[in-house]
Amino acid sequence: MALMKINFPRLQNTIETLAAIGRSDADHGLYRMAFSENDLQARDWLKSQIEAAGLEYFQDEAANIHARLNWDGKRASVMTGSHLDTVPGAGHLDGALGVLAGLECLRCLKEQGVDLKLPLESVAFTDEEGRFGGMLGSQAMSGRLTPELIHNAKDLDGHMLSEVMTHLGMPPLNILRARRQPESIHAFVELHIEQGPVLEQQRMCIGVVDAIAGLVRWNIRLLGEANHAGTTPMNMRKDPLQGFAEVAAALARILEENGSPRSTATIGYVNCFPGAANVVPGRVEFSLDMRDTDMQVLDDLAQAFRKSISAIARRRDLMFEYDEVSRLQAAACDSGIVDCIGKVCREFGYHSMQMHSGAAHDSMMMAGITRTAMIFVPSMAGRSHSPAEWTPWEEIEKGSNVLLNTLYRLASEAA
Amino acid sequence: MALMKINFPRLQNTIETLAAIGRSDADHGLYRMAFSENDLQARDWLKSQIEAAGLEYFQDEAANIHARLNWDGKRASVMTGSHLDTVPGAGHLDGALGVLAGLECLRCLKEQGVDLKLPLESVAFTDEEGRFGGMLGSQAMSGRLTPELIHNAKDLDGHMLSEVMTHLGMPPLNILRARRQPESIHAFVELHIEQGPVLEQQRMCIGVVDAIAGLVRWNIRLLGEANHAGTTPMNMRKDPLQGFAEVAAALARILEENGSPRSTATIGYVNCFPGAANVVPGRVEFSLDMRDTDMQVLDDLAQAFRKSISAIARRRDLMFEYDEVSRLQAAACDSGIVDCIGKVCREFGYHSMQMHSGAAHDSMMMAGITRTAMIFVPSMAGRSHSPAEWTPWEEIEKGSNVLLNTLYRLASEAA
Repeated sequence: MALMKINFPRLQNTIETLAAIGRSDADHGLYRMAFSENDLQARDWLKSQIEAAGLEYFQDEAANIHARLNWDGKRASVMTGSHLDTVPGAGHLDGALGVLAGLECLRCLKEQGVDLKLPLESVAFTDEEGRFGGMLGSQAMSGRLTPELIHNAKDLDGHMLSEVMTHLGMPPLNILRARRQPESIHAFVELHIEQGPVLEQQRMCIGVVDAIAGLVRWNIRLLGEANHAGTTPMNMRKDPLQGFAEVAAALARILEENGSPRSTATIGYVNCFPGAANVVPGRVEFSLDMRDTDMQVLDDLAQAFRKSISAIARRRDLMFEYDEVSRLQAAACDSGIVDCIGKVCREFGYHSMQMHSGAAHDSMMMAGITRTAMIFVPSMAGRSHSPAEWTPWEEIEKGSNVLLNTLYRLASEAA
Repeated sequence: MALMKINFPRLQNTIETLAAIGRSDADHGLYRMAFSENDLQARDWLKSQIEAAGLEYFQDEAANIHARLNWDGKRASVMTGSHLDTVPGAGHLDGALGVLAGLECLRCLKEQGVDLKLPLESVAFTDEEGRFGGMLGSQAMSGRLTPELIHNAKDLDGHMLSEVMTHLGMPPLNILRARRQPESIHAFVELHIEQGPVLEQQRMCIGVVDAIAGLVRWNIRLLGEANHAGTTPMNMRKDPLQGFAEVAAALARILEENGSPRSTATIGYVNCFPGAANVVPGRVEFSLDMRDTDMQVLDDLAQAFRKSISAIARRRDLMFEYDEVSRLQAAACDSGIVDCIGKVCREFGYHSMQMHSGAAHDSMMMAGITRTAMIFVPSMAGRSHSPAEWTPWEEIEKGSNVLLNTLYRLASEAA
């Protein structure tokens, strides 16, 4: 099959234009949190781009914005997409790249008038970054939301999702209507920056994502006895910070013994109470974030941590409590699409490698209703969620070319 | 020598009366921070008690309150004392016991008209607990203060010591005049609650303190690289929290290898940044409090910690920085007074043991200018700096009897 190329100057121009919407003069970071003024401005701009390209504009009940090509409401579509919203102080590529490269792909396919068996859609999903919980639009589209989740969704400032949507003229419970039937989507492919250091270190242009890691996150408390640091001999202490140290120092061993090469375990937060230099702590609280692409491995890993922390607490006469605060199911990517992406890379002569995504993406939700895969481009120094986020333009061009040809081939398949 | 006994109901009454001054209805804790309204009220009450007992009242330029018996300004005095001020939310014995038992001893000696070769003083030292730095009155009396220290002393709310004293009609630099010449004090003995669990666990009534531990305290920072917890493989991390865990888990070993049986090492504070469950920390800050009664041991211990943390940081590619935020010299107690206290205990038939004090006390300062020792009574469950602070009344009576006879014997010695 012939290899097509995107119009790179046009893509670069749209990326630079969107990067100016919501940019702070103070830290040069982007502030396009979902449904903020900046997010709404970006949505309006995207709508104008879709219409100017002669594509069909559609916004569903979850405020996901679709650009559509050859849509007839009957045939399944080949879908791509990502998100316009950002974390506070974000870079210019996380989410935006997938939305704008998807739009560029549809433009190219339309301009070049190629024969397509299936319609195409490029989607900007609502609130991927989690002002109201994360992956809201793709959860809605894949049918994971419930009235209760919608009713309770609240941001850190206490604003309710339902109030924000009502204010924008969107009945909140109608979000449930954004659900798509699996047979209405032929495949989903998302282009995204890696947000990690692997591709750069391996000197690869393209990561072909074959799985998205699942996640289990605990808040853990170890309770002992607060005592005077001077008057309490070492052998009369019940020091939960010493228990924590033993847990944290065993983390690598527990991971190596019970995890897979793709497992990670991270303690990102720790605090002790009362937290004074001259007081043996009485309580330590910390987080434990565990990830793997295989839920069985992940559950085994969590079980191993639970046993280890229990044993340490028992020996040290501490109380051990934990809450599971997050659980995300791992998602396997479709081997057919993974093969297709790999083949396109080889035909272009782009160095590519198969890898997993340790971060969650809209693709994780979409994998629940359709064949899904992701294309990663390198993140310099692994930096993301920061104004330092950067991918060289030539890598962006390569990733977008891979997306274009992958979508083209998927849309040329027999449905 | 005959054994005398204090008037226990009278002592109990004064302890209960003072315990009502500054007590919070909310948490039943005492709030008599130095120079607060409650502290001033306690000072007025103590003055009235001294005068009612027919003892001489004297307040020096550091606001230390003295009760004096047979004072003539020529002979060296036998001194006892402790402090009236408290930490916020304190118990009723820390400091107060030593002041009131001292006053009771002078009352007894006066009433019983015993022959004394030397005058006696019972002192309530100013700001032992550290609103303005700690052991302020005993530092003044032992000549450790400088105009600079006085000028810079500030509480947590930003109030300057110099302003507070000026407001009370006391020229701040006159604090320096509270310095006593070593030859003006024959000996100093302080009765105090242990504030630790040792006496109770050993079923002892009296602790005879033979040394007060010195202290070195560091604030330590380990600097690595903040990264995404999902996308950064374990082997590409520079995680300072893992470095911290290794340090904290090595604490017991380092202490056992380099310390003495009296050494303690405590991490009472730890925090990591940015401190989010899904981010590998980029910076960890923690405190390290090291104590021993032998400064050479303490310095060796600190050196061992420095080498261990350096090695761990080097291997993990972290930066290691620390500040020494406190250093207190250890103080040896006078063996003659220690022997005298032990002898009194044996004569009474009270179970006693020699021990060190892991906490700092006014005695630590007084040891710099005169022969010093301390008498400890048990703290139930080691609790202190809390409304749960408690010593059974019979133990208080025994400790006060030991103080009385020790002071009597010291004041009967040839000067």
